[in-house]
Formats: sequence, structure tokens, C-alpha cells
Amino acid sequence: MNAPRILVQLDSDSHPSVFDAVVAIDAGVEHLLQYGQVEPTNVRQLVHGAMFTRGPAQLNNTAIFVGGSNVSVGEAIAAEVRQTFFGPIRVSVMLDGNGSNTTAAAAVLAAARHAELSDSTALVLGGTGPVGQRVARLLLRRKCNVLLASRDLDRAEVACKQMRQRLGHEICSRLEPISYSASDWPASALHRCNLLFGCGAAGATLLDADSLASASNLRVAIDLNAVPPAGIAGIAVIDKAVQRGSRVDYGAIGAGGLKMKIHRAAIERLFTRNDLFFDAEEIFEIGAALETQR
Amino acid sequence: MNAPRILVQLDSDSHPSVFDAVVAIDAGVEHLLQYGQVEPTNVRQLVHGAMFTRGPAQLNNTAIFVGGSNVSVGEAIAAEVRQTFFGPIRVSVMLDGNGSNTTAAAAVLAAARHAELSDSTALVLGGTGPVGQRVARLLLRRKCNVLLASRDLDRAEVACKQMRQRLGHEICSRLEPISYSASDWPASALHRCNLLFGCGAAGATLLDADSLASASNLRVAIDLNAVPPAGIAGIAVIDKAVQRGSRVDYGAIGAGGLKMKIHRAAIERLFTRNDLFFDAEEIFEIGAALETQR
Amino acid sequence: MNAPRILVQLDSDSHPSVFDAVVAIDAGVEHLLQYGQVEPTNVRQLVHGAMFTRGPAQLNNTAIFVGGSNVSVGEAIAAEVRQTFFGPIRVSVMLDGNGSNTTAAAAVLAAARHAELSDSTALVLGGTGPVGQRVARLLLRRKCNVLLASRDLDRAEVACKQMRQRLGHEICSRLEPISYSASDWPASALHRCNLLFGCGAAGATLLDADSLASASNLRVAIDLNAVPPAGIAGIAVIDKAVQRGSRVDYGAIGAGGLKMKIHRAAIERLFTRNDLFFDAEEIFEIGAALETQR
Repeated sequence: MNAPRILVQLDSDSHPSVFDAVVAIDAGVEHLLQYGQVEPTNVRQLVHGAMFTRGPAQLNNTAIFVGGSNVSVGEAIAAEVRQTFFGPIRVSVMLDGNGSNTTAAAAVLAAARHAELSDSTALVLGGTGPVGQRVARLLLRRKCNVLLASRDLDRAEVACKQMRQRLGHEICSRLEPISYSASDWPASALHRCNLLFGCGAAGATLLDADSLASASNLRVAIDLNAVPPAGIAGIAVIDKAVQRGSRVDYGAIGAGGLKMKIHRAAIERLFTRNDLFFDAEEIFEIGAALETQR
Repeated sequence: MNAPRILVQLDSDSHPSVFDAVVAIDAGVEHLLQYGQVEPTNVRQLVHGAMFTRGPAQLNNTAIFVGGSNVSVGEAIAAEVRQTFFGPIRVSVMLDGNGSNTTAAAAVLAAARHAELSDSTALVLGGTGPVGQRVARLLLRRKCNVLLASRDLDRAEVACKQMRQRLGHEICSRLEPISYSASDWPASALHRCNLLFGCGAAGATLLDADSLASASNLRVAIDLNAVPPAGIAGIAVIDKAVQRGSRVDYGAIGAGGLKMKIHRAAIERLFTRNDLFFDAEEIFEIGAALETQR
Repeated sequence: MNAPRILVQLDSDSHPSVFDAVVAIDAGVEHLLQYGQVEPTNVRQLVHGAMFTRGPAQLNNTAIFVGGSNVSVGEAIAAEVRQTFFGPIRVSVMLDGNGSNTTAAAAVLAAARHAELSDSTALVLGGTGPVGQRVARLLLRRKCNVLLASRDLDRAEVACKQMRQRLGHEICSRLEPISYSASDWPASALHRCNLLFGCGAAGATLLDADSLASASNLRVAIDLNAVPPAGIAGIAVIDKAVQRGSRVDYGAIGAGGLKMKIHRAAIERLFTRNDLFFDAEEIFEIGAALETQR
């Protein structure tokens, strides 16, 4: 008899995410153990409880999900989780703080439906935030050129530097930091890009309508902001592959269906082995496999 | 395939109610997500997780229960829940802070087993508390005259004024504030009433034995206090339709079976649609439907 | 139809134990209600929710588990739980703070596989701690002589005195407090004992290799410390009935399989009645029954 599928939800917020909980249940989790206010320092004891309660043959039916609105705390928690494991005594782990990994994977996969990623050029607005950095990472790995944009050039440069340290210089040779303001855009940057991703904080307009209109080579524009006003003026939150001239547009809800499918599939996959670790790249690959089945 | 029935329990207490949890499970909830220390300000994020995780056809399998010992905080939470919804993107909600709605519905329905409510006169002791106010509301809607009693006349008057604002002047023309002390009762008030409800705080004697005996027109007396001493002297907590002279008596446990049935039926009903909101009146109607099936 | 099996997990830690949760689920618990930061003062309301939600015939499908790393707080919580019950309105309860009861039961039963307990003499290192005291209690009830050892003789004497008050003088006539240091052992004590239990805090060496070698009458040595260095030098954490000369050795993980079986069996047993209370002795008996089926 198989042991029931148990997911331990580790969340740094005071109330663990209802969103992540419902998706987990709909992905077949039979018992969800929700933990809020989790900090890296209190992870060890919780992880031991996942490691030492089932025999090796059943460890794939226990898994850990790390979420919470603070993405960097989630990363620290996930690092601590992995450090607690030893040898084959481990369970599979998915990291998706604030939905950043599943959202970034969905955005890049949505773009890939309409344009070849390799050798395209993408402009990533809000590129220093958690989703923006993940979108950039996923694009670079697919050999796309990336203009990582921030209002503050220094911050863009720091983010690019950190990415080079993480991914290596070769893959990051296609990465370039740039600064911008919503209404005063370097025309050259807009002209160069085929793909546009709006990954800024809620409530900030990243690009105005005139600038968007002037970007004549754009094939896909994706605005991941779900709260009005739009991050990219003219894209509606429910846009889903809406053709506007030579451009295809997606809004946050329009891309949300794919994000949900990826999230669910990743949770299901967690229970197939006991040694998986899902960060942005692994989650992207799960999504890519779903796309080939479309 | 149907999505599993998920209930999100929002509770303002530090530990969400075990009582509400067990009733939910016995009403068929498959996954209960318990949240304690919920405040109106942190409701929005939790509700979004209920709204945005399932397609329209499955939203009736997610619901929200608002409980907690502080009834007015529960009301504020429920108001915030409803404000977070928009258009058809919503789930059904039940409000039952401290069991006040199911208790009040059970008490009024128990009384209705033995007396016609319309044109009766009810004396509601502890009428300014959460259960007392709900008992009064339910009676007024059934065209019963209500003497809303408090030790402090000012508080009774304030409660009546608030009820007029909420329910309208016409329905409240039958509502009258009065003050009392346990041993010095206006004989006229006791003489006028056919129904008596004890809704005071635990440990307070609301009416002594002599006063009760002098209320010669009483047909039903219900004491909702579960902790000794009795709120209405002479009624035992386990009384369930105990005939004493021309009067029928109920204690808190005696009325508790009906309360439980109503609570369970209301939870079951939550999952039949995605746009229900259950406050005292809706819960009373669910109970009334159960009573016709007896 | 049977009501689902609900376990209410009361834990004094800020995050209720994942370990206890997984074991409960694997023992057939259908709905686990996890409560952290539980204190004796907030037990009553939670227990009422377990008592008053199901009819007498279904109360055996609700149970309470008291855990948490602070064993004495767990004992106080369990005492409060029992005081809240009245008459037949109660549910079964298991107390296993920090796994102390299941660990002690497993250790004593492991020893009993290799030696007759009655009239043996056991040396219990770290005998004043929660596991050590429970090991001593279980041994005494099986008519084993017990040397309860602490680094501090005063603490050993206080622990023995408390045990006499709890168990009675007759059963404790076989109990004797002694003090020790890891490298300077009273040779007579080592010489007298057939059974050795290491129940000290993690990270403390209780007995060095030379002293262990000098204990020539030892038949069984069990080190319950799971974190290096070993509490008893020379016993590995994974030792499971490893024969070394005339001695059989167990480490914490080696005894852990039996502990898990006992823990699971005790949880299953909780749901057979509504009036059980499982402390060390009852859990030991459940384990003893498992051993006879081997």
C-alpha cells in the first residue's frame, strides 16, 4: 500500500498561502501540513520530521513546498532544507516564493509560443525583482539576448553582476543592464527588442502607450502585473494571445492559466521521486514538457 | 471529476476553533485550511487564494467559514471577504462567530416548535449581546414582538437603534428596549411575554425562580447559558422540551442538537453554489427547512 | 457511516511537530488538526470542541495527541485536557512530548528481546531527563533494579524521590540514585549492571570506551542519542542488535524502527475507544503486545 501523499508547506508569511494550498490539493496532495512564520533557523526540526518518518520506499510520498511573499527568505529556507538532508534520506522540494518561479516559467513559455527565443532580444522591465530576474535567467538559458531594465541603472548592474556569478560569464554574455523611465525611453532599446516582459511591482506603470507603439519590432508583450494600472499601457489583465498589429499580448490573468498548469504539474512531479529540487529552471522544463503535449 | 471540497476557516482567535473544524469535517469538507489570528487587514490575500485557484465550474467546491470568539471582529472579517470578491469570481461564505448565528437560529426554531412566533411577545435577556441581538432579529422578521432587555437601559436603547438602522423602522416597530435586574422585574414585562430567551454572558443569573414563576403567560423558556449557574433559574442545561406546567423549557445542551444539525446543513449547503453568504437570516432559513422535514 | 478519524495535535512549540503529524497520518488519521504554541491555559476551549461535536457513538473517532519538545509543558497540557472532560463526554488522549514515551518504551522493549528484565540491574545514564525517567519507570514496573544516574547526585536523588511519590515506595525499593562522570566511573556500579541505557542530552558523552569495556556483566547497551558524538562511546547510531562480545548494542536509529511501530500502533489504538489515556506505561503495553506478535 502506498503511503498518502503529504506536502509540508513552509511559508515565511504569518498565514501560509491559501493559493499554494489549493493548488497543492488540486494536484493530488492528500494531507497538507501548513506552516507559517517559518524562518531559516527553524527549518531543521521540521525537515527532520519529513526525513525520519517513512522508509526509503515511501519517502517519495512526502515532499516540501517553500513559498511566502518574501522570495529571498524563501530561498534561504530552501537552502536550509537542502542542507538538512543527508545521503538518500531526503524528500523532494519545490521553491516558488510568491509564485515567482511558476510565473516566470509561464511568461517565458507563453512568449515561446509566438517567437523563437534563441537569438531574439527581450526587454525585461522590473528586471531586478524576483520575477524579472527569473524571466531573465530562463531567457538566457534559451540563448535569448536580455536587456535587464530598472529605473535605477546601479540596481540593474548589480542584478546582472549577481546573475553572472550564478550562471557564469558565457551564458551571461547576452545580458545587458539598462535604465529607463516610463515616458522617456531610449528609442534604440525599444527598437532592438522582439519580446517585452513587464515584471514590475503592482501599481507602477513601466511603459506608456506611445513608447509601446514605437517598438516596431515587438512580436510578444507580456505584462505580469495583475493590479491596475497596467504595467505596460494598453495590455489588459485578461489578454491571452491577443493580436494587436504584428504583436501578441498577454496580461497576468491571460498567462495565469498556463502558470496554474505548470504549478500543478510540478507538485504532481514532486511525488515521483524523493530527491528532486525544483527552482525556476526545473519548473520551466516541466512547463516546456506540457507545451509539447498541447 | 469534481474538485475536492475545501473550506478556509478564518478565525480571529490565536487557535482556530476545534468545534467549527470538527463540524466542517462531519459536513463533508475534504480539506480544511485553518487560519488563526486573522484580522480584517490580512483577509484580502487569503481570499485571493480562494478566488484565483479554480475555474468557474469548480469554485463552488471552495468556501470560507468565518468564526472566532469575537463576533464583531468576525463581522468585520466577513465584510472584508465580500469586498474582496468581484463579479462571478467569488466563493460562498458562512459567518458564525462564536456560534452566534447557529445558536440563535436553533433557539428561535426550538421556540417555534411550541408556539406561533408571529404576534407572540418575546423577552430577550442579554439582548445586547451577539446571540441576543440575533435572536431578536430573527424574531422580528417572523413578526414577533420583542422586548430587548439589558441591565443597562442605555445599552438596550443603543442596540435597538442599531437594529432599526439595519432592519428598517417598519420591521422594528415591534421592538422595545427595557432594563431589568435579576430579582426586581417589571411585573408587566414578565406578564406580557409568551417566549423567554436567556442570552446573557456565562455565569450571570438573568432571572430568579420567583420572577420566572410569576410569568404566567410563558409558553417557552430557553436558556442558552451552558456554564452553571443557570441564566434562568430552574432551567437545566440538558432540558430539551421539558414541560413544566404550561411552559416548555430548553437548556443550552438541550437546544444544542438542533444547533449542530443547522451548522452541518449550512456547511453542506455552502458547496452547492459559489455565491452564497450565510448570516443569521440565511442560517435560520436552512434550519427552518430542516424543521419541515422532521 | 463512521465519522472520519480526527486527531487534534496539541503542541507547545511554535510549529507543531512534522514528525508526529506524519506518523499520525500513516496510522490512519483522516483529518489532522494541528495546533502550535499551546499552553495549559488555552487547552479548555480546544478540548470542548473535541467533546461537544459528536454523539457518544462517534466520540471514539476523535482523539487528542499532546506533543512538543518541552516534555513538562506537555504533561501540564495533558493534565488540563483530562480535567476538562467530564463523565462519558471525553475522547482518548496520547501523551508523547518530544517522543519521550515511545522512545522509552522502544528502548526497554529492545532490551527485553535479549535479557529478562525482572531481577536484572539497569544503569540509566541521563536518568533525570524525560526519557531517562520514563525508562526507569518502565523498568521498575517490570521488577528490574534501576541505578538512576546523573552527573549531579542531588538531581538524581530528587528524581528518585519524585518517582517514589508517583509510583509508591514498594515498587521503588529497587531504585537507587547514583552520580557519575564520563571517565571516572564507580567500577562497582558498572560491574553490577546487565543493562545500560544512555538517555542524556544530545552532544554529551556519558560513558567512555574504557568504562564500557570494564562493564563485564553487560548484556544489552542502548544509546538513545541520535546526534554525534555518541552518548555511549563505541555504539553507532544505526546499531540494531549488534553483538559485541557478550553484549548486544542498539543506537537511536537502530531502536527507531520499533519506536515508530509503537507510535503508529498507539495512534491506531486511540480510535478504538473514547476514554483511553496513553502515558509511558500504556504505550509500553501496546509495544509489548506488538513484540509478542513478532
